[in-house]
Amino acid sequence: MKHLLGLPHHDGSALFVDSTSLALGDRVPVRVRVPRDYGETEVMLRASHDGDPLKIPARLEREDATERWYTAELPIDNPVVNYRWLLGRPGGYDWLTGRGVMTRDVADAGDFRATIYPGAPDWARDAIGYQIFPDRFARSDADRIRPDWAEPAAWDDEPAKRGRAAVTQWYGGDLPGIAERLDYVARLGVNLLYLTPFFPSQSAHRYDASTFTHVDPLLGGDDGLQALVRAAHGRRMRVIGDLTTNHTGDSHEWFIHAYDNRGSVEAGFYYWLDQLPPGQRRWAETMAEARGFTQATYHGRVIDYVSWLGVPSLPKLNWGSAELWGRMVTGPESVVARYLAEPFGLDGWRVDVAHMTGRFAADDYHNAVARAMRATVDACGGLLVAEHFYDIFNDVVGDGWQSVMNYPAFTKPVWSWLTPADTDQQFADLPVPVPRRSGGDIVATMREFDAAVPWSVFSRQWNMLGSHDTARVLTLLGDPGLVEIAMVWLFTYPGLPAFFAGDEGGAVGTTGEHSRVTMPWDQIAAGGGVRWDQATFERYRAAIAVRQGSPALKAGSLRWVVTADDALVFLRETAEERVLVVLARSPWTGVRLPRSILGDGEPHLLYGGSLVATPALTVTDVLSIDGTGPAVGVWRLA
Amino acid sequence: MKHLLGLPHHDGSALFVDSTSLALGDRVPVRVRVPRDYGETEVMLRASHDGDPLKIPARLEREDATERWYTAELPIDNPVVNYRWLLGRPGGYDWLTGRGVMTRDVADAGDFRATIYPGAPDWARDAIGYQIFPDRFARSDADRIRPDWAEPAAWDDEPAKRGRAAVTQWYGGDLPGIAERLDYVARLGVNLLYLTPFFPSQSAHRYDASTFTHVDPLLGGDDGLQALVRAAHGRRMRVIGDLTTNHTGDSHEWFIHAYDNRGSVEAGFYYWLDQLPPGQRRWAETMAEARGFTQATYHGRVIDYVSWLGVPSLPKLNWGSAELWGRMVTGPESVVARYLAEPFGLDGWRVDVAHMTGRFAADDYHNAVARAMRATVDACGGLLVAEHFYDIFNDVVGDGWQSVMNYPAFTKPVWSWLTPADTDQQFADLPVPVPRRSGGDIVATMREFDAAVPWSVFSRQWNMLGSHDTARVLTLLGDPGLVEIAMVWLFTYPGLPAFFAGDEGGAVGTTGEHSRVTMPWDQIAAGGGVRWDQATFERYRAAIAVRQGSPALKAGSLRWVVTADDALVFLRETAEERVLVVLARSPWTGVRLPRSILGDGEPHLLYGGSLVATPALTVTDVLSIDGTGPAVGVWRLA
Repeated sequence: MKHLLGLPHHDGSALFVDSTSLALGDRVPVRVRVPRDYGETEVMLRASHDGDPLKIPARLEREDATERWYTAELPIDNPVVNYRWLLGRPGGYDWLTGRGVMTRDVADAGDFRATIYPGAPDWARDAIGYQIFPDRFARSDADRIRPDWAEPAAWDDEPAKRGRAAVTQWYGGDLPGIAERLDYVARLGVNLLYLTPFFPSQSAHRYDASTFTHVDPLLGGDDGLQALVRAAHGRRMRVIGDLTTNHTGDSHEWFIHAYDNRGSVEAGFYYWLDQLPPGQRRWAETMAEARGFTQATYHGRVIDYVSWLGVPSLPKLNWGSAELWGRMVTGPESVVARYLAEPFGLDGWRVDVAHMTGRFAADDYHNAVARAMRATVDACGGLLVAEHFYDIFNDVVGDGWQSVMNYPAFTKPVWSWLTPADTDQQFADLPVPVPRRSGGDIVATMREFDAAVPWSVFSRQWNMLGSHDTARVLTLLGDPGLVEIAMVWLFTYPGLPAFFAGDEGGAVGTTGEHSRVTMPWDQIAAGGGVRWDQATFERYRAAIAVRQGSPALKAGSLRWVVTADDALVFLRETAEERVLVVLARSPWTGVRLPRSILGDGEPHLLYGGSLVATPALTVTDVLSIDGTGPAVGVWRLA
Repeated sequence: MKHLLGLPHHDGSALFVDSTSLALGDRVPVRVRVPRDYGETEVMLRASHDGDPLKIPARLEREDATERWYTAELPIDNPVVNYRWLLGRPGGYDWLTGRGVMTRDVADAGDFRATIYPGAPDWARDAIGYQIFPDRFARSDADRIRPDWAEPAAWDDEPAKRGRAAVTQWYGGDLPGIAERLDYVARLGVNLLYLTPFFPSQSAHRYDASTFTHVDPLLGGDDGLQALVRAAHGRRMRVIGDLTTNHTGDSHEWFIHAYDNRGSVEAGFYYWLDQLPPGQRRWAETMAEARGFTQATYHGRVIDYVSWLGVPSLPKLNWGSAELWGRMVTGPESVVARYLAEPFGLDGWRVDVAHMTGRFAADDYHNAVARAMRATVDACGGLLVAEHFYDIFNDVVGDGWQSVMNYPAFTKPVWSWLTPADTDQQFADLPVPVPRRSGGDIVATMREFDAAVPWSVFSRQWNMLGSHDTARVLTLLGDPGLVEIAMVWLFTYPGLPAFFAGDEGGAVGTTGEHSRVTMPWDQIAAGGGVRWDQATFERYRAAIAVRQGSPALKAGSLRWVVTADDALVFLRETAEERVLVVLARSPWTGVRLPRSILGDGEPHLLYGGSLVATPALTVTDVLSIDGTGPAVGVWRLA
């Protein structure tokens, strides 16, 4: 077990950084708290300046019986400034970086980052995200004409786990259906709907768009989307869409025209094998083979184009085409802009396969595309969230994507801590079972990824318990009590907490496709059923309400207090509020914390779910947390 | 103490990667060795592809009693590919990355890197670098006219430690003087001379060039350089120069013309305060104040320009000027090209303040400048080494700088392991004493930085024991025995080993300036003296000869065997040769290694310096290394 309360702490929250908006040339006061237990310390700030590390003296700002606060002026000499604290001690020095206190010299990848780029819009601070897969959420009374690709399914049918059926199962949910259920959504407490794609396509998931000019009539068309957004806005809810920028469907009008007219401007939107050097051509073909696409033609066309990981229904977009930029991301007529503007009025975009967008062989337009999209979204005060499975170190400095779907630094670590040791469930991106790891390992991983981005990004990362691309969290953990721990973690942690519709009623699913279950409205109305657990619903509701009532949970600092194999304790703090969160996956030793963290008041229980009674918080000379587990506890301390 | 021989291993050397030159679209076989002690393992390769991590199966290639070798085809789908091995084990998986085996999920910063960019030229494989500060190495008989800035010093005077005197002390060494001493250089065994700047300037160090059109007449002028390079080439030695690309001197003809003619093309080569936004203007002024430059004028000019860290004698170059590119780096008339071509025939450049070059406020031309310089240097088969004190993760992927002066991953760690605990010596970049750290911490730091660059860079990094910017290694360590350990490490480690002239005779110096001592030729001729230790010279000579006779030391893999607080053991291997290196800074427990690492032969002692007898290598059922220290040992095992 590691006790971290005795270590110096800094993060990018308002307690430690004096300004929320920075400009080139600014000097921003930043500070670090150094517990007295840490010993005599000479404090200095190291900050990057035109590629060189400046050393900047820090001065003692204030001190009390338990700690000293030092401050220094951080120079904002470049759009992104890397910085760390040097803690001089007898016989050597430590570094305080975004990964914590380091007792050896470390490379700069873990440094704190300050940036002139603003984060997500202010409204994101209060947002609770709710992912809706339109075909599966709710069905209106409207008659819909079955398209060629669709195989009708009954509302209570279990979705296929994989294969062709998973793509074609058509449950008939639509946008008016969602609009009719906003009462339910409001009662749950979420206020940001994330709709997976609503453009016409050849599948239920719609990541293979056949046009971006209008909303799929099967979902209610443009009118349906406009009405849904209006209704949501009327309830102070926001709505974001889902856009594919890496590829289109092979049924897309651009692709069909391009395929038949290789001299057309649209032909420049795609990559054609005969225009590639031989090595890369072979590469594209190998990729298709690896995915099992060995045929020479698809949908009657020769597969002479590059597609997403070799899947011929998803031809890859070539961002070397200037015309594509205008069609997709820049200017008021672009797809990105048009749906953010009236009469649609979307509040932002989630971007599919963002991490591969603009990247092919020696081409890398990725950051430029992200920046262009960001400019368009910022002009509307919108949200821009990237699907990103890989190395975010260079992709999310703040000028492009506002945040990413936080699989690596939230979903995976949470799963990996709470999973049973013998699961055969796999995480989406890796063909091996989810491992069960210790709390210390989990937090080290989270801090490593978290340090890669500025606080303005970290504090609004799209944190999830799962998505339409993963198993359901209940299926992995197998125990509603463990799900409660994951859920409390989600709503008490920095970021934009989001979950997949149905999780709040105990939805199950073993694969991404299998998880795309419908909402069992009958059972919801009845207060329970085989597909609906009302107790879980009430816990989600309660935890959301706790977050919405707590400035510290929404925007406070994050200070790890204890990392043990089986328990994690952290503090969230603003100048006015201090909240302690205890998560225990199983019985542990418990811990005694110094009385000083209580401040002047008494601890106040904030969350009272099914497990809350177990960790006892008793005040004597120390604050004692017993070792019961599984358990969760959320207290306001001051 | 950590035993690492039982862990899987991979690196970028020929044992593990099948090709030395890669192209886009290639599939290159790569392999990993997995000791049987590590247990049953399912091996997979994870590699980046257009920003996404592919999972690629590996197959068992061969196995013997002690280990299994697995192989997989690494797709070279992008100019730089990040990859790592997934080691599936009962109950979970580990990762093998450039930092070693990781038992938790880690971010991509530590991944191995494969790249289509070639490394340093082939001849660098055999190079031993020798840094010469022209004013201090050797004086010819030529009469030199004292320039205005110079204060003559006697050859045996101790250099000033800092301040104005350190800049103006003129000892009168010159290029013909160097040429006259090539016999000595050849005897030592070095074959690559790195000359600090030779352009006219206003200082002894010459980093403040007043022109790039000709070699300083004070050093012998163009003829002197041409004759030196010819003489060196005649002995199969190479010579590189030292170029300032971040700034010029304020006496530079470009700057003088620019200052007086703000509409001139040269005015575009610099940054002028009145053209900056107010925030950045204040920034530049603050920087000057922090450096103690509070006056309004310097050399009769108003300080209305941006300079290197506020030092007004070094106005910063603005790479936003296209004309500057032509003058400095692109095309046959550029400074970079002209001195590489006949009649000069230099073999490459070390680039001063490379890490800040092209970086100012929101401008960042750094990587573009590096790539342009690289293209010019590559056209001549030359070497391009960057001075780089900071985050190399994004700056040295292989297309720009071939390597960097390796302070962070060699000089600092070596110093920090061997330094006495109570030193008050500081490292150049940090205003605190050099800390004494454990071997485990040292190696973790080295691996963290090493993993940031492709093997083609790592294996040719410009490794140093010190430079003209640091104290002398003997002054820090205080003990020739400890220097011997550092020196053996240098010559047995991957990289291009280099040292500052004088180190081989026990030169001392407490600061960079103080270290710029002259060579005591009288004492060298006499075989010793107060400034010359012949025993140290013989040890350098012997260690250099060992390296030059060993393919494994020049180009083999690097496998850490033991990291203990006080001892480090590593293996260097090619298909034909295996060399074991033992370094002990003080007595330790010793270690027993499996007999299998011996192969079929007997260990053969390669290096016999003053400490060599102490670590006993005895063969029974195990290979036993005793715990004597300080000690070094270098053996050929197979």
